[in-house]
Amino acid sequence: MTDPLPSWNEGANKAAIKSFVERVTTEGGPDFVPVSDRIAVFDNDGTLWCEYPMQVQVFFALAQVKLLARQAPTLLEKPAFKAMLDCDLKALAALPKKEAFEPAFATHAGMTVDEFRASASQWLAEAKHPTLMQLFTQGAYAPQRELLDYLRANGFKTYIVTGGGVEFVRVVAEQLYGIPPEQVIGSSTRMKVETVEGQPVLRKLAELGSFDDREEKVVNIALHLGRRPMFAFGNSDGDLAMIRYTLAGDGPRMAWYLHHDDAEREFAYDRDFKLSALRDGLDHAEEYGIGLVSMKNDWNRVFAK
Amino acid sequence: MTDPLPSWNEGANKAAIKSFVERVTTEGGPDFVPVSDRIAVFDNDGTLWCEYPMQVQVFFALAQVKLLARQAPTLLEKPAFKAMLDCDLKALAALPKKEAFEPAFATHAGMTVDEFRASASQWLAEAKHPTLMQLFTQGAYAPQRELLDYLRANGFKTYIVTGGGVEFVRVVAEQLYGIPPEQVIGSSTRMKVETVEGQPVLRKLAELGSFDDREEKVVNIALHLGRRPMFAFGNSDGDLAMIRYTLAGDGPRMAWYLHHDDAEREFAYDRDFKLSALRDGLDHAEEYGIGLVSMKNDWNRVFAK
Repeated sequence: MTDPLPSWNEGANKAAIKSFVERVTTEGGPDFVPVSDRIAVFDNDGTLWCEYPMQVQVFFALAQVKLLARQAPTLLEKPAFKAMLDCDLKALAALPKKEAFEPAFATHAGMTVDEFRASASQWLAEAKHPTLMQLFTQGAYAPQRELLDYLRANGFKTYIVTGGGVEFVRVVAEQLYGIPPEQVIGSSTRMKVETVEGQPVLRKLAELGSFDDREEKVVNIALHLGRRPMFAFGNSDGDLAMIRYTLAGDGPRMAWYLHHDDAEREFAYDRDFKLSALRDGLDHAEEYGIGLVSMKNDWNRVFAK
Repeated sequence: MTDPLPSWNEGANKAAIKSFVERVTTEGGPDFVPVSDRIAVFDNDGTLWCEYPMQVQVFFALAQVKLLARQAPTLLEKPAFKAMLDCDLKALAALPKKEAFEPAFATHAGMTVDEFRASASQWLAEAKHPTLMQLFTQGAYAPQRELLDYLRANGFKTYIVTGGGVEFVRVVAEQLYGIPPEQVIGSSTRMKVETVEGQPVLRKLAELGSFDDREEKVVNIALHLGRRPMFAFGNSDGDLAMIRYTLAGDGPRMAWYLHHDDAEREFAYDRDFKLSALRDGLDHAEEYGIGLVSMKNDWNRVFAK
């Protein structure tokens, strides 16, 4: 038997995941779950790929904000835009996540969905992390890709539920994680349909539709999925509602936090990371029944390269 | 070879559907489409089940509106509520679809999602169509269930995109159409997450989130699916934007209108049905490349019973 999780070190966490998957897939067993109910949800930023010092999409907005400044100078009074124009990453990283993402959503307004995808795709093909010396897309965690593949091989339907823009994440989800567009749930701007040369075209509007963080993740899971997941993986307090919702159902359930404690290979941060802190989740993990995966101890490699 | 569509009469339409499915599934052929892109979208009311003289969910609201009248008497000034309380089906059917559905959304406000499902499920188990002498759920069209099964057997992922409430349709979608909750897109009220006895609980709010009709169907397809369908089936002008969006992509595509021309076995209506007229779609079907399925001529049976 080949190990389905070779980037995971042997230990209690790896054993718990494998045992859980075996139990819920053993027909006739007391914990058997039919395939249709095997739904797993993963946060993206900080759970499936590197989000430090800022989420990838915030870097993407940073690269585009100068264009916007010329188009809509009044926006520059907002702290996130000002920080971006000054390239003040420290000021940016001190903002609440929703504010830091605001320029990302604003810079995309007015584009058609197809134009936005092309623009994001082009940027992602070349843009590099400022210190890791690799493309942002290479910041995807190899052990998580193995876990996603392992769950799918056992009949799970895997979803991303992200605070990032749904269209942005869809650009990479298939390639990095094997997750098709219809299994990505995320933040979204409102859209409208226009007729261009007799054909319907989707255009992104400036108005935020949903900021898919905290309780809103649960609301969007209900709206898009219509059933409660049985497996959840996150890394911040923004994922706590989704994790608790996952754990609150009947039958076997499992949820994990990825703990960024690996300053050598990635970064070490949790409760003081303003953009997306892990604080309540860390303080109450045991009480709530959430497992902690240590990047440092549980993974023998972080990135695929 | 067993006929996959036994309730469809032999003829040009049945032949066109089978030929299309064969072409897009023939590996190496010029029209081959990979499984991941085989997305089919179906309207529900009037396309997958009977919507005449009013959509099933409007009947459901009718059964509940008296409760609401006691709770919120000011609502009764609105025409749809007044018509419901008077049991004036004619006045109700003369309203625009969105207005007619308003009491349906309002009566569900304040319930948890679980309570709503239980309530809808209970009603649907017993409620009967006023003239067809069968349960509303028996109003599902047998030929469409065959078509859905046939598409799925050929690698298509089948979605419902309905003006009806997403939670209402999810209650029956699996049983009637073999479609899981996560493949139902529909109208929705806003929801909030509350903590009840330490556990997160979803509650429906009075505010409409999305009325999934006309252009909004395209917007919701973009939001939930993130890719363009290649096959669409509708029955009213409310489906025209979705159908045109489906047909506007590259590669092989197909779209149909179900024409209700069968007064004997079901009902005959189109451009004068106020709740959901088929007018523009009928006038321009040929120009837009939309096929017309005649209930009377193309189907040798309508209902499964």
